Amino acid sequence: MPTLDQFKQEICDIGRRLYNRGFAAANDGNITCRVSDTEVLCTPTMHSKGFLHPADICLIDMDGRQLAGEKKRSSEALLHLEILKARPDVKSVVHCHPPHATAFAVAREAVPSCVLPEVEVFLGNVPIARYETPSTQALAETILPFVHQSNVVMLANHGTVSFGETVERAYWWTEILDAHCRILLLAKQLGRVEYLSAEQTRELIDLKKRWGYPDPRQDPSYAGADLFADDVFRASWPEAGVRAGAFGAPAWSRAAAESKSSEVAHPTPDSDEEAFIERIAERVAQKLRAALKPTP
Amino acid sequence: MPTLDQFKQEICDIGRRLYNRGFAAANDGNITCRVSDTEVLCTPTMHSKGFLHPADICLIDMDGRQLAGEKKRSSEALLHLEILKARPDVKSVVHCHPPHATAFAVAREAVPSCVLPEVEVFLGNVPIARYETPSTQALAETILPFVHQSNVVMLANHGTVSFGETVERAYWWTEILDAHCRILLLAKQLGRVEYLSAEQTRELIDLKKRWGYPDPRQDPSYAGADLFADDVFRASWPEAGVRAGAFGAPAWSRAAAESKSSEVAHPTPDSDEEAFIERIAERVAQKLRAALKPTP
Amino acid sequence: MPTLDQFKQEICDIGRRLYNRGFAAANDGNITCRVSDTEVLCTPTMHSKGFLHPADICLIDMDGRQLAGEKKRSSEALLHLEILKARPDVKSVVHCHPPHATAFAVAREAVPSCVLPEVEVFLGNVPIARYETPSTQALAETILPFVHQSNVVMLANHGTVSFGETVERAYWWTEILDAHCRILLLAKQLGRVEYLSAEQTRELIDLKKRWGYPDPRQDPSYAGADLFADDVFRASWPEAGVRAGAFGAPAWSRAAAESKSSEVAHPTPDSDEEAFIERIAERVAQKLRAALKPTP
Amino acid sequence: MPTLDQFKQEICDIGRRLYNRGFAAANDGNITCRVSDTEVLCTPTMHSKGFLHPADICLIDMDGRQLAGEKKRSSEALLHLEILKARPDVKSVVHCHPPHATAFAVAREAVPSCVLPEVEVFLGNVPIARYETPSTQALAETILPFVHQSNVVMLANHGTVSFGETVERAYWWTEILDAHCRILLLAKQLGRVEYLSAEQTRELIDLKKRWGYPDPRQDPSYAGADLFADDVFRASWPEAGVRAGAFGAPAWSRAAAESKSSEVAHPTPDSDEEAFIERIAERVAQKLRAALKPTP
Repeated sequence: MPTLDQFKQEICDIGRRLYNRGFAAANDGNITCRVSDTEVLCTPTMHSKGFLHPADICLIDMDGRQLAGEKKRSSEALLHLEILKARPDVKSVVHCHPPHATAFAVAREAVPSCVLPEVEVFLGNVPIARYETPSTQALAETILPFVHQSNVVMLANHGTVSFGETVERAYWWTEILDAHCRILLLAKQLGRVEYLSAEQTRELIDLKKRWGYPDPRQDPSYAGADLFADDVFRASWPEAGVRAGAFGAPAWSRAAAESKSSEVAHPTPDSDEEAFIERIAERVAQKLRAALKPTP
Repeated sequence: MPTLDQFKQEICDIGRRLYNRGFAAANDGNITCRVSDTEVLCTPTMHSKGFLHPADICLIDMDGRQLAGEKKRSSEALLHLEILKARPDVKSVVHCHPPHATAFAVAREAVPSCVLPEVEVFLGNVPIARYETPSTQALAETILPFVHQSNVVMLANHGTVSFGETVERAYWWTEILDAHCRILLLAKQLGRVEYLSAEQTRELIDLKKRWGYPDPRQDPSYAGADLFADDVFRASWPEAGVRAGAFGAPAWSRAAAESKSSEVAHPTPDSDEEAFIERIAERVAQKLRAALKPTP
Repeated sequence: MPTLDQFKQEICDIGRRLYNRGFAAANDGNITCRVSDTEVLCTPTMHSKGFLHPADICLIDMDGRQLAGEKKRSSEALLHLEILKARPDVKSVVHCHPPHATAFAVAREAVPSCVLPEVEVFLGNVPIARYETPSTQALAETILPFVHQSNVVMLANHGTVSFGETVERAYWWTEILDAHCRILLLAKQLGRVEYLSAEQTRELIDLKKRWGYPDPRQDPSYAGADLFADDVFRASWPEAGVRAGAFGAPAWSRAAAESKSSEVAHPTPDSDEEAFIERIAERVAQKLRAALKPTP
Repeated sequence: MPTLDQFKQEICDIGRRLYNRGFAAANDGNITCRVSDTEVLCTPTMHSKGFLHPADICLIDMDGRQLAGEKKRSSEALLHLEILKARPDVKSVVHCHPPHATAFAVAREAVPSCVLPEVEVFLGNVPIARYETPSTQALAETILPFVHQSNVVMLANHGTVSFGETVERAYWWTEILDAHCRILLLAKQLGRVEYLSAEQTRELIDLKKRWGYPDPRQDPSYAGADLFADDVFRASWPEAGVRAGAFGAPAWSRAAAESKSSEVAHPTPDSDEEAFIERIAERVAQKLRAALKPTP
């Protein structure tokens, strides 16, 4: 078991790593680490995560009351404590604003699965919690529906939160998620994302089981599911305003057909397109009237 | 109160941070810090901000005259001094060219609000000052209309300037603005930006009030405003050539309707599109003439 | 010949370089280095490549059995060993997930040649191996068809693997590939990629020969080939699901004509486009019916 | 005058800066520095620019013959020497592959002017030299037409070369160019680039004169020119295959009108568009035939 000073140093080190990656501008982001049944280390408010010293780290109790430390604890501690209470196996929580993942959270675009094996194995389906005002108990509660089924949660119009058995592990899931979102954005620029087959994805979920990583998709009730369309967190999408609109779907998934029909029936026609169609039709009509005009 | 050497060191440290983030190529950018009622520290001209030593920092008076330092003060000191004079609470000013924010300044695209809570709380609406030649008093004066209502100002076709009670704080607002613009650009690649509701935005502005951060949108006169369309700085857009064209608008704002009608009535039809429409119409007309041709 | 400790240190150094470039999130990536006929150094599993110490590096035999080291060797060692067995001249293998190259691997987009001279000289045509589950012998075998013709292989929906006579050289080919893919993506944003002529490309392949770098395109059987369309690895594209779709082709290549006709004959019309055409046609028909309506 | 060791150290420092910015993958890039009338320091071949030590730097004469140093000098020394011979005031040359500028060089897209004041003042118009095989005298000669009118030259399908009175200054122009190209690419994603007026640009060129920086646009013969369309290097565009296609033009320039008419008269209609038009016309014709069919 590391000493309190070692835990503080690890928080500073991961803070620096996170800042250097561009995951936290200014005072953004916060990190907690449970050090006993009743005590949690927490980064201070209004302090850059890239330049922390062990003396800056606060000690708080499980209700967020500050026990030690010269600086004031982060106002986002409530979010961290809800996760630590709900998941006794979790020792650390990392919240920040990694740019590519946060872009998905701002577009409220579901992160497509069946793309990269590491993402399937280490993350699985990634939920997006509905927006609530930061630093409130209401925000803390938006993530509770997801904490038993995922080790990373995206926060709509806000950022990400991930958690694990050490500070570094908690941070890792954020790093994987942001790298994944970045690759998806770059592949989209190339014009397409190619998907794994259902069998290849199933193999990864099985591999994960053998390696001891749980995944809701390993549950027997999930056996007949469409591995792409039946995202574990799909039922939560309407509440959070989440859609799957930026990427296509694998041909083997019913989502491929759904996405096409939904596009055709798109309920809000774009005025720009309308005007364009009207201009085409009017031009044709002009030629038509000329053609029909009786020659004198 | 830090010593002069400590202030100089902080300028060097923030210079390095700013350079490492890619906010200042070559000799770009400049930083000032007020150290007494009549004296200001200022970075030297023609020097990379990433490799400053305390001995490189100049001391100037409130009129820009150099009081000490072996190197010549930045030619952009006038811009900094205008802000320091207008805002006695401000101790430091940071000017640089963060790439994502400067892209907005080059497109003269208004930064949309109601997207990320940290941006609402720490920045609020962000003005874009009209273009004037760098190093001139005229440029310095373009920002005066905004300095009492914002802690960060974008400079059309130029860059950004932000200010605060310490060098680090002054820099922070630039870091937040660039991170925000980066996330907006990435979300745009996903096809959309989803907005907070008017109520959610209002809650952030109220939160800001409780935390002691002023915002022009807290003024009673703003009570009935459309929180998205009635950008605090909207009246200044025509003078600076600013538009809101790259992002949609929330359905609850009148800007949603405005953007559609303005697109339909777009005054400068694209010649490319014209040619395309003409080709469609001509092709249809050919088929039409063939269909109408009397069979012999 | 460096000592074992020097080899371990080089692995740590290249790991740090690779992590700092964003080529390996969390525990991603692995590096091996052959130190004798029967022994290979290998990075440990579940360890960030950016923060390795020499004591973390494992020693394994050519079948992947661990000979020394406190940490467990990477599960991807099989992939490395297949390359080391097939290529006695190769001393080191680097596997990671560089974002721009991995975007090509996720889009299964063939990397166009005839663009940058350094890429022709140091890489040549780049194969994409078909997807197989990571950490399996099946994945290891997907790269065998390519290891005698290339020093870098992209892994569909996964990442890259490159190899050379030292750890640094092995890493270099990954760095060149990712820089190339990045430049291609940026040029695409500008609207086009301009190609070298067949003669200019031929000159580079000849230069490469004089410098002692082999290239399958130096083989006499390749003499009459179309240097752009006849990618050395084209025959493998269907099995791996690879296409050349995101970039145009040089006018001098038959691929220029092919790409156009294949687009016209595109077998899966987009429903969105279908709906758009139907809306145009229906609008025209309305105007047509009105024009034909007999005036009363 | 710095000592030889100080010059070597500066080359190593700038190499590290350049590598950390991602301007040189693997062994890419090379740096020279003139230390006497007949001697030039030169980086070694096949060595990463990010990890140079003073002992790695070679000494060569003005014909490229190696005078000292254990490692072999870069094969691109000829390019550097041509510049040093043509410009006695230049002490250092930096060649590398900055990604955003190289994207312009690969698209052979002219860098638009009248956008950012620092670019006008420190760079001015930027030429693109035609492609020639690297490491040849032919490549070295492609840049000669430009070295008296610019301190930075882009190399078509290759990279950049910049030069100045110190190693750092030589590097600066590359850093400014790449930052500029990056901002242009990001502004393009927002949908537009807004330009300075002709008067505002003229003011910058005059300012440059007062500051002692020469610019071909200060020549009296340039007085009546269109500051945007009459790019100083425009006459060289056809030979290098350069176009201005990715960005619009300011309304005050005749390029605004030119770009529109050239688009309408685009000589190579896209087959995809053709097929699309044909599908529209055929659909309309179907409806037309139905409408014209005599009711039975």
